Amino acid sequence: MAARTVLLTGSNRGIGLELVKQLLGSPRPPAWIFATCRDPEGPRAQELRELANKHPNLVLVKLDVSNPSAITEAAKIVEVKLNGLGLNLLINNAGIYTPTASLDTVDAEDMVRTYKTNAVGPMLMAQAFLPLLKKAAQESKAKGLSCSKAAIINISTVMGSIKKTTDSFSPPVISYRCSKAALNMLTMCQALTYGEAGILCVALHPGWVKTDMGTQQADLTVDTSVRGLLSVLPILSEKHSGTLLNWEGKAIPW
Amino acid sequence: MAARTVLLTGSNRGIGLELVKQLLGSPRPPAWIFATCRDPEGPRAQELRELANKHPNLVLVKLDVSNPSAITEAAKIVEVKLNGLGLNLLINNAGIYTPTASLDTVDAEDMVRTYKTNAVGPMLMAQAFLPLLKKAAQESKAKGLSCSKAAIINISTVMGSIKKTTDSFSPPVISYRCSKAALNMLTMCQALTYGEAGILCVALHPGWVKTDMGTQQADLTVDTSVRGLLSVLPILSEKHSGTLLNWEGKAIPW
Repeated sequence: MAARTVLLTGSNRGIGLELVKQLLGSPRPPAWIFATCRDPEGPRAQELRELANKHPNLVLVKLDVSNPSAITEAAKIVEVKLNGLGLNLLINNAGIYTPTASLDTVDAEDMVRTYKTNAVGPMLMAQAFLPLLKKAAQESKAKGLSCSKAAIINISTVMGSIKKTTDSFSPPVISYRCSKAALNMLTMCQALTYGEAGILCVALHPGWVKTDMGTQQADLTVDTSVRGLLSVLPILSEKHSGTLLNWEGKAIPW
Repeated sequence: MAARTVLLTGSNRGIGLELVKQLLGSPRPPAWIFATCRDPEGPRAQELRELANKHPNLVLVKLDVSNPSAITEAAKIVEVKLNGLGLNLLINNAGIYTPTASLDTVDAEDMVRTYKTNAVGPMLMAQAFLPLLKKAAQESKAKGLSCSKAAIINISTVMGSIKKTTDSFSPPVISYRCSKAALNMLTMCQALTYGEAGILCVALHPGWVKTDMGTQQADLTVDTSVRGLLSVLPILSEKHSGTLLNWEGKAIPW
């Protein structure tokens, strides 16, 4: 993967933390990795802080994607740090999940809270980092679209696929499914809007992963999922923009 | 259409008002039509009030679908009026639309406000009216699922189809598209959840209609659209539950 500058959200644990680790450990690590999370000073970000102490190219940035003003603040901090460079890769990984949300139990508050983080957050992130993504696209000499040029990767899920719902309706997780269907729509709209500026926009399903969110009953280790995701990124091109792919690069219907 | 009791939201103008008119004018009108809107006493509901003065089977109920407690209040009022009868047909028609919402301009507030009315509202409506819908299903002797037995119809749009976005991206209307993709997902989840209780759940696209929302540039008159929708309802069965169909009954992909 040739992205020189990368920013990802929700990076203190689960898939986000593993993305940071594998990016740092890659043969040609990015010049800058901006790892954001809600509380980089807190107890749940200790492993991320230890990594930052060892790796000068890893920068921790405080960011709650459900807070619009926090997003614009973070974009200013990153812009200063990049010091004239663009941002090649924005990975919207932060997400929340209410495991008990069936139609019997889900309420308006859960629906709105989940939507704010899982759909509105990625929209605002792309808006705020758009100048830096455009800069990266303009500075690249590569033709077409790619993650090494400029890309927005929205971490979505097969549970946001309406067509696949019948296969996976246990658990129902209504608030999560509705927010991720909206995120998939957002990804398509971003592809149609930002393609002209040279920015690739793709939604990725990481699989069912053994994390705090996925539980230990899940199919995949976080190592396998993230190795998959990172092997998919370099093969993405304009033909994938506005699609949902799994961690092995296979297309998932909407 | 053999639905004896019908409730619809957003019924003071546009498609909602025309649904009321055509239901009242049908050869065998429902025993009860509950027509809800935000302000049945206000200037924008005058035509609806005039209809209610002429038709004793038309009951106006104040209801803002973005207000969860207003929904539970309305359900109590309707239950009392039904006096032991069930509700055959719930039509979630109320919706809002921000015509200028491109990715350049859309903000968190618009995203959340639109989601609350277009996706969360229909979810809460179904929850609140579920006991009355179940009662209608239990009292019916018909096999399978149908609108004359018990049904939830979510008025959606082809603009909520991710697959069709490329064909219709002008205007982008991001907040509307994302909320309607979520509504389509909700419809699928409702079909999978409520099917066992004998309740049909379908999303319908009314076409691009000459209303305040659709503007006078639209393809269809509201009369044509609503005649189409009302001719689709009687043909719906279990095979349609969890699908998106247009006003002519044609399936639209997700």
